[in-house]
Amino acid sequence: MQLIIGNKNYSSWSLRGWLALKAFDIPFEEIKLALFSDSFHSELAKYSPVGKVPVLVDGDLNVWDSLSICEYLNENYLDGKGWPADTKKRAVARSVVADMHSGLFGIRNEMPMNCRARRQIELTNTAKKEVASLEALWTKLRTENAHNGDYLFGEFSLADAFFAPVMFRFQTYGIALSAAASDYQTTMLAHPAMQEWLVDAVAETDVYAGGEIGEAF
Amino acid sequence: MQLIIGNKNYSSWSLRGWLALKAFDIPFEEIKLALFSDSFHSELAKYSPVGKVPVLVDGDLNVWDSLSICEYLNENYLDGKGWPADTKKRAVARSVVADMHSGLFGIRNEMPMNCRARRQIELTNTAKKEVASLEALWTKLRTENAHNGDYLFGEFSLADAFFAPVMFRFQTYGIALSAAASDYQTTMLAHPAMQEWLVDAVAETDVYAGGEIGEAF
Repeated sequence: MQLIIGNKNYSSWSLRGWLALKAFDIPFEEIKLALFSDSFHSELAKYSPVGKVPVLVDGDLNVWDSLSICEYLNENYLDGKGWPADTKKRAVARSVVADMHSGLFGIRNEMPMNCRARRQIELTNTAKKEVASLEALWTKLRTENAHNGDYLFGEFSLADAFFAPVMFRFQTYGIALSAAASDYQTTMLAHPAMQEWLVDAVAETDVYAGGEIGEAF
Repeated sequence: MQLIIGNKNYSSWSLRGWLALKAFDIPFEEIKLALFSDSFHSELAKYSPVGKVPVLVDGDLNVWDSLSICEYLNENYLDGKGWPADTKKRAVARSVVADMHSGLFGIRNEMPMNCRARRQIELTNTAKKEVASLEALWTKLRTENAHNGDYLFGEFSLADAFFAPVMFRFQTYGIALSAAASDYQTTMLAHPAMQEWLVDAVAETDVYAGGEIGEAF
């Protein structure tokens, strides 16, 4: 099985798919396409009909979009253990993930992932509200599930993989979080797979040509 | 079980959740909040922590986001029959749905759903490319699965529910489609649940105050 990713420093969507594999110890080969090279789109077109990373290649099947990849791994490699076992908690996990997947544009647009950088920015009110909503959400979920572990639903789940890029974003842009939210961020950043991703991101030499603030890849 | 929706003429996300219930004959009570009223957000806050429609209320559980609602219904009310039975086809179905869920902003921004209206607009190249990509996608999937029915994966699936708003958008803005894509649009618009939605949308009296072209609700 291969995962096609764009780049580790900038590609937030790639991180989600990669972490879903890595954190659950599913063996895979990483294929990294140079995000800003001339050949990026032509190379990617071999794998993805929509021209986006990540793509999971499992034999003759290509699965695209990080959320679809998560569901595929959950069904076929995790025996359902990617999501919380409880039906109601699983529904909430999918709801918060779907909201991250389709929204939170303030955070995504104003704080493009750039793991190795440190920046100072002024957030719009939209982004500030989104940060506050994530603080409240994370605190509520971790409090409810604290008996079972330090992640959103106790043990590490696909929901944590989905919020992983936000951990780097908040670190990069120096976003001050509530103590409880900061504690979750610390937990996430200390995860061995997150550490491994960061080491690789720092070592990358490709630089976004559009300037400091890029698209949310 | 209740489904909280915003409005039938304008609320594309609401349509997805509603159709997932209706097309699969799952009994539910529809609770429609007046989308442009002063009380909309305060009413919605009773059901949704993120202030968005649709919300599915099942006993003491609230499930939000149309995709999460689809997965919940699939697991708990459809015995997995909401998606194609074949593992590979199911992965592709989730991939195309996830891409619609997180992208296709040209179509969503330039053609806000307004079921009962007829407009003439000039699409940007971005939107034109997205229309062409959907034409190609729909044609490919329907050709592959034609032995099994007229929908994307043969029988009606949650993937069709996800593209339902686009059928109304293309009709409203007079988008000329390829013969094969137009045939799928005709199939979708003729579905009894789509017809029912349209009748209700036409009968609604609330009008978007922001002018002809609104947000993609």
